[in-house]
Amino acid sequence: MRVFLKIAYDGTFYHGWQSQEGQDTVQGKIEECLSLLTKSPVELIGASRTDARVHALGNVAVFDTEFSIPPDRYSYALNDMLPGDIRIIESKEVPGEFNPRFDAIKKTYEYRIYNGPILLPTERLYAYHYRGNIDVIAMNEGAKWLLGEHDFTSLSSVHAQAKTRVRTIYDCRVKREGDFVTLSVTGSGFLYNMVRIIAGTLLEVGIGRLSPKQLPAIIEAKDRTKAGRTLPPEGLRLLEIEYDS
Amino acid sequence: MRVFLKIAYDGTFYHGWQSQEGQDTVQGKIEECLSLLTKSPVELIGASRTDARVHALGNVAVFDTEFSIPPDRYSYALNDMLPGDIRIIESKEVPGEFNPRFDAIKKTYEYRIYNGPILLPTERLYAYHYRGNIDVIAMNEGAKWLLGEHDFTSLSSVHAQAKTRVRTIYDCRVKREGDFVTLSVTGSGFLYNMVRIIAGTLLEVGIGRLSPKQLPAIIEAKDRTKAGRTLPPEGLRLLEIEYDS
Repeated sequence: MRVFLKIAYDGTFYHGWQSQEGQDTVQGKIEECLSLLTKSPVELIGASRTDARVHALGNVAVFDTEFSIPPDRYSYALNDMLPGDIRIIESKEVPGEFNPRFDAIKKTYEYRIYNGPILLPTERLYAYHYRGNIDVIAMNEGAKWLLGEHDFTSLSSVHAQAKTRVRTIYDCRVKREGDFVTLSVTGSGFLYNMVRIIAGTLLEVGIGRLSPKQLPAIIEAKDRTKAGRTLPPEGLRLLEIEYDS
Repeated sequence: MRVFLKIAYDGTFYHGWQSQEGQDTVQGKIEECLSLLTKSPVELIGASRTDARVHALGNVAVFDTEFSIPPDRYSYALNDMLPGDIRIIESKEVPGEFNPRFDAIKKTYEYRIYNGPILLPTERLYAYHYRGNIDVIAMNEGAKWLLGEHDFTSLSSVHAQAKTRVRTIYDCRVKREGDFVTLSVTGSGFLYNMVRIIAGTLLEVGIGRLSPKQLPAIIEAKDRTKAGRTLPPEGLRLLEIEYDS
């Protein structure tokens, strides 16, 4: 049976999602608990390999097992075993051919910027701190240019490994709530560091170092050096991954 | 010169405010930095001795020094030395007789309850998790009875050390925002564990184990065992301390 897990985590104390020998990772932690629970080695297939210190409210992974507990009970059983910084939000059976990575049709990420004068201690692990004035209207004007299908070479890491750098952005918007400026972006998929680079580029627009109208030329250049910098991981969180049906 | 500090911290990794030999405490950390900075031993007088894992946005402390930097620069100098989970929001000179504890006229605390089905990993250090149905209207009806001057023996720790257990509550209200139920309470001062016990007692009201109308009798009894339990520290944060002028 193939079992689907929807997973939330605080990435602060993990070396990212992906299992690595001798490191605490989210995948490694869940695999360890699943292997104990089902009494045989379990390997997860994950949807999104988030980096160290990146958070998730809805990452997705699947595993195959012969173990006979009802699939919806895995969330309870795992939450009893896992540390509080990893929670299984939902577990259910999916068809054996379901692939969480390739079957995803939309992913939504959020990037949080704390824009007050002094970074609140309780937000230091969950937001990037920028002190100066941010023009959210300008950021939204810049964000419009990202919508649709583009080659996102300029807005992804030079180390991104993907057959094609063409992705579709369905929604991209920035809002201010009190001292927080939050970018939300939904797309068909994202290249390595793409959301953090989009956030860094739109922040340049927000602080007046780039004009919103420069976005088309930046995309067109297919040159990473034309875009803004990669903002740090702690501000990033994977909100949701959507599938058909 | 007596210098006033307004201090925010994430209490997760500290054994509370008060200096203790061989333990990391917020007071100890700031005293260590101030002593290095001013090149002589500094002792802080704090307004509120928060417990381990309790957070603060506006605790207050003062110290006396002969060191000659402008008093408003201490916040910058200390923030350069302190870890990110302690921030000095403001520093300024105050009269030599100013006492942050005895001169406080109002303190405001907040207690956060996460009321969704599964505790979000990113909130686990900053909220108490309660899964069941909470009636916020009933909690607010109960909260009304706390307003004004009362002997709060029933709603404070039996270990509270204070000449009198009479305190005045100026404001006490509960609101729901999404999955969060937050209690805010402003008073002349608070006894040991008083906010956590008020939160625990109003939660009993919210889940129907107590009626709001029982609050007067609970207060009248002057008996700790009549009230609800002490909710855990991580949900508590000291928001503000107010002074005359």
